[in-house]
Amino acid sequence: MKFIRDSLHGNLQLNEFEVKLIDTPQIQRLRRIKQLGFTYLVYPGANHTRFEHSIGAMYLASKLTHNLDLSNDQKEMLRVCALLHDAGHGPFSHVSESVLEKSHEELTSKLIMESHLSDILEEKFDPKEIIKLISGEGRLGQIISGDLDVDRMDYLLRDSYYTGVAYGVIDVERLIYNMKLEDNLILKSKGVQAAESMLLARYFMYPSVYQHHTTRIINSMFRRCINHLFTEGHINPENIYKYDDLDIIIKARYQKGFIGDMMHRLDNRKLFKSVYSLKLDELENPNAVFKIKPDKIKSFEMEISEELNIPEEYVIVDVPDYPSFDEMKTQVSSNGDLINLSEISTIVSTLRDARFNHADLCVYLPEENSNIKDFQFQDYIEIPK
Amino acid sequence: MKFIRDSLHGNLQLNEFEVKLIDTPQIQRLRRIKQLGFTYLVYPGANHTRFEHSIGAMYLASKLTHNLDLSNDQKEMLRVCALLHDAGHGPFSHVSESVLEKSHEELTSKLIMESHLSDILEEKFDPKEIIKLISGEGRLGQIISGDLDVDRMDYLLRDSYYTGVAYGVIDVERLIYNMKLEDNLILKSKGVQAAESMLLARYFMYPSVYQHHTTRIINSMFRRCINHLFTEGHINPENIYKYDDLDIIIKARYQKGFIGDMMHRLDNRKLFKSVYSLKLDELENPNAVFKIKPDKIKSFEMEISEELNIPEEYVIVDVPDYPSFDEMKTQVSSNGDLINLSEISTIVSTLRDARFNHADLCVYLPEENSNIKDFQFQDYIEIPK
Amino acid sequence: MKFIRDSLHGNLQLNEFEVKLIDTPQIQRLRRIKQLGFTYLVYPGANHTRFEHSIGAMYLASKLTHNLDLSNDQKEMLRVCALLHDAGHGPFSHVSESVLEKSHEELTSKLIMESHLSDILEEKFDPKEIIKLISGEGRLGQIISGDLDVDRMDYLLRDSYYTGVAYGVIDVERLIYNMKLEDNLILKSKGVQAAESMLLARYFMYPSVYQHHTTRIINSMFRRCINHLFTEGHINPENIYKYDDLDIIIKARYQKGFIGDMMHRLDNRKLFKSVYSLKLDELENPNAVFKIKPDKIKSFEMEISEELNIPEEYVIVDVPDYPSFDEMKTQVSSNGDLINLSEISTIVSTLRDARFNHADLCVYLPEENSNIKDFQFQDYIEIPK
Amino acid sequence: MKFIRDSLHGNLQLNEFEVKLIDTPQIQRLRRIKQLGFTYLVYPGANHTRFEHSIGAMYLASKLTHNLDLSNDQKEMLRVCALLHDAGHGPFSHVSESVLEKSHEELTSKLIMESHLSDILEEKFDPKEIIKLISGEGRLGQIISGDLDVDRMDYLLRDSYYTGVAYGVIDVERLIYNMKLEDNLILKSKGVQAAESMLLARYFMYPSVYQHHTTRIINSMFRRCINHLFTEGHINPENIYKYDDLDIIIKARYQKGFIGDMMHRLDNRKLFKSVYSLKLDELENPNAVFKIKPDKIKSFEMEISEELNIPEEYVIVDVPDYPSFDEMKTQVSSNGDLINLSEISTIVSTLRDARFNHADLCVYLPEENSNIKDFQFQDYIEIPK
Repeated sequence: MKFIRDSLHGNLQLNEFEVKLIDTPQIQRLRRIKQLGFTYLVYPGANHTRFEHSIGAMYLASKLTHNLDLSNDQKEMLRVCALLHDAGHGPFSHVSESVLEKSHEELTSKLIMESHLSDILEEKFDPKEIIKLISGEGRLGQIISGDLDVDRMDYLLRDSYYTGVAYGVIDVERLIYNMKLEDNLILKSKGVQAAESMLLARYFMYPSVYQHHTTRIINSMFRRCINHLFTEGHINPENIYKYDDLDIIIKARYQKGFIGDMMHRLDNRKLFKSVYSLKLDELENPNAVFKIKPDKIKSFEMEISEELNIPEEYVIVDVPDYPSFDEMKTQVSSNGDLINLSEISTIVSTLRDARFNHADLCVYLPEENSNIKDFQFQDYIEIPK
Repeated sequence: MKFIRDSLHGNLQLNEFEVKLIDTPQIQRLRRIKQLGFTYLVYPGANHTRFEHSIGAMYLASKLTHNLDLSNDQKEMLRVCALLHDAGHGPFSHVSESVLEKSHEELTSKLIMESHLSDILEEKFDPKEIIKLISGEGRLGQIISGDLDVDRMDYLLRDSYYTGVAYGVIDVERLIYNMKLEDNLILKSKGVQAAESMLLARYFMYPSVYQHHTTRIINSMFRRCINHLFTEGHINPENIYKYDDLDIIIKARYQKGFIGDMMHRLDNRKLFKSVYSLKLDELENPNAVFKIKPDKIKSFEMEISEELNIPEEYVIVDVPDYPSFDEMKTQVSSNGDLINLSEISTIVSTLRDARFNHADLCVYLPEENSNIKDFQFQDYIEIPK
Repeated sequence: MKFIRDSLHGNLQLNEFEVKLIDTPQIQRLRRIKQLGFTYLVYPGANHTRFEHSIGAMYLASKLTHNLDLSNDQKEMLRVCALLHDAGHGPFSHVSESVLEKSHEELTSKLIMESHLSDILEEKFDPKEIIKLISGEGRLGQIISGDLDVDRMDYLLRDSYYTGVAYGVIDVERLIYNMKLEDNLILKSKGVQAAESMLLARYFMYPSVYQHHTTRIINSMFRRCINHLFTEGHINPENIYKYDDLDIIIKARYQKGFIGDMMHRLDNRKLFKSVYSLKLDELENPNAVFKIKPDKIKSFEMEISEELNIPEEYVIVDVPDYPSFDEMKTQVSSNGDLINLSEISTIVSTLRDARFNHADLCVYLPEENSNIKDFQFQDYIEIPK
Repeated sequence: MKFIRDSLHGNLQLNEFEVKLIDTPQIQRLRRIKQLGFTYLVYPGANHTRFEHSIGAMYLASKLTHNLDLSNDQKEMLRVCALLHDAGHGPFSHVSESVLEKSHEELTSKLIMESHLSDILEEKFDPKEIIKLISGEGRLGQIISGDLDVDRMDYLLRDSYYTGVAYGVIDVERLIYNMKLEDNLILKSKGVQAAESMLLARYFMYPSVYQHHTTRIINSMFRRCINHLFTEGHINPENIYKYDDLDIIIKARYQKGFIGDMMHRLDNRKLFKSVYSLKLDELENPNAVFKIKPDKIKSFEMEISEELNIPEEYVIVDVPDYPSFDEMKTQVSSNGDLINLSEISTIVSTLRDARFNHADLCVYLPEENSNIKDFQFQDYIEIPK
C-alpha cells in the first residue's frame, strides 16, 4: 500500500499494481501536462496537471463503484481505467485536436498497446477490455466516459479548486450514492438535484473558465502556433502523445518568424484583442455557426487580412467550442420507469437552450492592429442559415 | 481597477500602476517558475508558481499595513515591494543557489535596475528605495523580509493549499491585526499565539514538504544536473534570472551523457535511493555538519565512488538545509517593554532545539547501485566536532 | 476596536458604537434564536443563530458599500441597519408568522422604538431612518432588504456552511464588486452570472433545506403547537419578540394535553408521516394552492379527521411556502440601458417557472395512524381553479 | 442504509441497527446539549451539539478500524461505542462535574443499563462489554477513550470548525493510517508528526477556546448558578443525565434571588470582570494550585467578600482546569521497539511543560464591584508549596 496526497481528495491509497502503472514514463508524462493548458494566464492558480486529475478520477471510481453490485476485480479494473483514461492526450490537446487526424480514444488505445503499459495490464486484465471501457463502451464504460462519469466529476471540482472559481461545487457524494447499475448506469430519482448541480457547474464554468474570452484568445493564438509547428514539420502530429507541455513551448519559443513571434507574445502576455463579436443567441439558427467549414473561415480571414493590410496569419476568426451537454441524456429511475433527465428536470432542458447565451463568434487582431473603427466585419463573415 | 482571482485569497484588486508592472516580461516570467521546483514529484498538486505567490504577498502587504500608521504612498510602496520581491529568482533557485556567486537580493536589484521595471517604478518611487525595502532594510523593510513577513505568511499558506498538507494553517488575520510599527515591526502580546502557530507551521512543513526525504533526493539529483549545465557552459549563471523552468529542463533533457541521463531519471521518476542516514540529533554538535566545506563533501563522494566502483557524479552526499528560525527574534511588546519572542514562549525556544530532530545527512545512489549491504559509510564521512 | 470571530467570514471588526448596540439584551437575545428553527432535526449541524447572521450581514454591508459612492456616515448607518435587521424576529418566526397580526418589519420597528436601542441609535442617527432602511425603503434600503441584499447573501452562505449542503455557494465577491448605486441598486452586466449563481443557490436550498420534506413536517407540527400556546393564552403573540427559543420550547414541554404531546414528539423525533402528496406542477394553476384560505384548510382537516376517526388537531394539511424569487426584478445596466435580470438571463426565467417543481401539498398524520391504504385524500382536498 | 449529512465529514452512512439506537430519546437528547456549553458567548458559532459529535466519532471509529485487523463485528461494536460514549453527559457537564458524585463513565453506564438502550444493544452485543469499551478498558477501549481516541479527534476538528479558530487542524488521516493494534493501540513512527499536530491543536485550543479567559468567567458564573440549583433542590444531580440545556437554563432563569440574577447576567452577557490574576508559571510548583481543596477556596472567597463588603456568592476565585496531556503516554513502534511518544518527540515533552504557560488563578467580581484598586488579593489567597 502506498499513499499519494491529493490536495482535493486527501490521502489516496494505491496498491502495488497501480503503483507499477503509475511508475511508467507514460503516466509520469502526465505530470508535465497542464489540465487547462494556458488558462494559467487568466487564472494564475490553474497549473494543475492531468496526473493529479487521473489519480483523482481513480479515487472517484472507487467511491462510485463502492455501492454498485460489482466484483472486486471489476472495481479494480474500473480504477485502472480511470487512471489511464487520459494517457493518450497530447499537450494542449483541446487546442491541437482540430488538426489531429486521430481521436483521443484512438491515441490512448495506440499508446497502451505500443508501450509497456499493455504488458503490465496483462498481468491482471485484458488490455483490449480496458481500452473499450475507456472509450465508454458497455454498461461499465459509462462510469469512465458517460453522461455522469468520474472524469467529469473530478475535473469540475479540480478546475474549481485551482482557478478559485466557486461555481464548480457539485454534491459529488450525493450523486455517487444515488447511482445504480442496471442495463445502464442509472440515476435514482433522489439524485436528480445533485445531477442538476453538476450540469449547472458545467454551465457556469463554460463562460468563466473553459470559454473565458481571454482564454479563447490565448487558445486561438496558440492553436495557430501549433498548426505551424505541424505543417512546417517541427512536430509530428502522429507522436503528439509522446511530448509534454515543455517540449512544445520550447520548440515554439526558439523558432524564428511567425511561430517564435506568437510564442513570444504568449510568454509575455501580449495578447491579441477582440475587435468583433457576433452573439450566437441573436442568430436565428445558432447551430449553423458550428457547421462553418475550416476552409470557409480561412477565406474570411484572408479577405479581412487583405482589406486591413495585416498578414493573414495574424487575423483570427474564432468560432467558440460547441457547448455539448450530455448529462441530459442520463436516465432516471422513477417509480420503476426510466425517464430522461431532461424530461424530469426543467432546469436541465433550460440549460440546453441557455448554453448559447454566452457564446459568440469573434475576430482577434494583434494589439498594434486593433485600433480599428468602422470596419464592417459582418460583411466578411457569412453565416449559413 | 482590475481583478485577479487568486485561489487562496479570492478576488484581488490591482490598480493601473500595478498592472503596468505585472505586464512586464520580468513579472510574467514568474508564471513559469514553480514555487517549489520539483516538489510536484512528491505532492502532485504542488505546481503553483512564484507569480501567484507574488500577487498573494502583495495582498497580504495591504492587509498588514491597513492598521499601521503609514501614509497611502508608503502602503502602495510596500505593495509594490511585495510584488517584486521574487523577481530576481532564477528557476529552481533553492537548488541552484549554492553555485551562484550572487545572492537573490543582488540579482533582484540587478534585474530591477537593468530592466524596464526601474523606468516604471520611477513614475512613482525611487527604485533604489524599493530595492532596499525588498532586502529588508529599514523598519518598513521588515514587512517584506523580516521575522514575520508577508512573504513567509503567503508561502506557508500557499504551499499548504497546493500540497494538501494541513499543517501550514496559520492564523494570519490574528497575526496581522496584532502587529504595530514602532522602531521596528512589533508584535503585541495578544499575537504571541498566532506567531507560535506560524513557527509551528514552518516546523511541520520542513520534514513534510521542504525537506521531505524524497524531495531532498530529487533536489540533490537536479542540483548536480544544473551544476554540470553551468560548468559545461550550457547556461550562464549570471543570467539565471532570465530563464524559466522550461528553459532549464529542456536544456538538460536534450544533453547527452550525465546531464541527459539525470534529467531522464527525473522525467520518469527513476529516483536515487537513500543508502545511508546520519541523524543530526544524535551528534554532540549538530551545527558542525552545516560547516563542512563543499570540497570536503566532494572528497567523501570520491572515496565512496572509488570503493564502490560507481562513477563519482553518481554518488551524492547530501547535507540538509540549515533550518533557520528567524521568527524567534521577533520582539513582543508586553506591558510597555520589548521582549524577545523566544523568551516569552517556551514553544518557540523548544522549536529552536527541535528543528534538528528530523535532519539527517544522507548518501544517495542510483537504484541499480543501491543494493548494498555492510558498507560502512560512516568510515568515509568525517564530521568535525 | 473589538473583534468577533465568525466561523464563516473570519475576524470581524466592530467599533465602539456597534459594541454598545450588540451589548443590549435585544441583540443578545438573538444568540438564543436558531436561524433555522428545528431544522437541526434534519441537518444536525444547523444550530446557528440569528446573532451570528446579523454580525455577518453587517460585515457584508461593509463589503458591498466599500465600492459605492457613499459617505462614511451612510456606510456606518448601513452596517447598523444590517446588525439590527432581525431584531424583531420572534423565535421560530417563520413558523409562527401565520398567526401573528403584525409583520416582522412592524415588530422590529416597535422593538427599536420601545427599547434602549433607539436611545443608543440617537447618539448618531435618526432611529426612524434606520427603521425605514431596514424595511427596504429608499435606494439605500435595497442593500438591506431588496433583491440582492446582504441578508440573503449571508444566510445562503451560512445555512450552507452549517447544514453541510454544498449548493449555497455563491460568488459573493463578484456579485458585490459588480453593484453600483444609481436611482436604484444596479447590477453591472459583468455580475449577471454571479446573480444567477445566487438564484440557483436559493433554488437548490429550497427543497434541500428550507422546504425539505421532513423540515416541513416538523414545522407543521410545531406551528400547531405554537398556535395552541397562543390561543390557550400561554404566550402573548404581541410579545413574541421578547422570547427566545428556550422559553417557547419549555413552555410547550411542560404543558399537558395536545401541546405537551406534540413537544414530546419533537423532542424525541417521533415525527408525523406524510400520507398524501399532491404535486403542484401537475396542476393547471399551481398558484391557486397558495390562495386557499386557512378556514378552508381547517375544514379539509376536519373532514379527514372525522372520516379517519383521528382527533382533528392530529390531522395536518400542509401547503408549502410560496417560493418567491425577487432577484428576477433586479435591474442590470447593459450598454447604458437598464434591463430586468429575467430578460437578460434565460436561467432566471426558467427558475421562476421551475420553482414549483419540488412543491407539493401534503397531509401528515401521527406515525401510529399513518398505516392507511386506499384512503382517497384527493376527495377531501378541493383546489380552486 | 440511511445517511446523515455532517457539516464536517460529509454524508455519513448508518445501518438499521444504528438508526434504532439514534432514534431513542437518550441519543436524541444529545441534540439539545451544546458541545461547548456557553462558549457561544465568546465564539458566536459554537452552537454545535454532542449529537453531531457522537455521529462524527462513530464515523472516525470506522475510519480508524478500517485498517486494523479486526472482525466486522468488532468494527461495528466500536462504531456503536463511539455513538454512545457521551450518552450519560448532563448538560454543561464540564461545568457541573465538580459537584456531581458520580463520574461520567458511571452515569453513562447507569443510563445504558436503565434505559431501552440496553435492550436494543442486546440484540447484537453484550451491553456490559460496550460499557467497558466506552470506559477505555481493554486494548480496543483505547480507540474510544485513550491517548489518541476518536472522541478527541472529532471534537478538536469540530470545535475548530464552529468557533472559526484555525488551530484545531489535525492531520487525522495520516494519524489514523499510522495506527496499529498490538497489545495496545500503537502509533507507527511515520505517524509521530501527525500525533504532534494533534497535541499542538489541543495546546492551542486550550487558551483560545477551552480556557479562554471570558469562557472561564462565564463557566464560573454558571457553575455557581448550577450549584445553587442543586443545593436548593431545584435539580437532582442524580438525574442530571436526563435534562437538556434548556431545562437547566429555564429553571435558572425563572428563579428569584441569586440564581435568577446570575442567569439574567448570562442571558444579557453582563459578565463578571477579572480583577486579579496569578500566573502559574511564575510559581515554584504550579501543580500545587490544583490541589487546593474546595473548602479552602471557599474560605478565600469569604474573606475577600467580607473585606470588600460584597455578598459571598458574588466573589469567585477560579482555579483553571488542569491541562492534562495524555497523548504523551502514547507508545510508538520504532524499529521493533515500543517507545513513549514523549521520549521520541521533544515537541511533546515541551508541550507538557508549556501547558502551564497560559494558566492562571483568577478572581472575578460583578462589573459594578470591579473598579477596585490597590486591593491585595494575594494576601487572601494562599498557595501551598
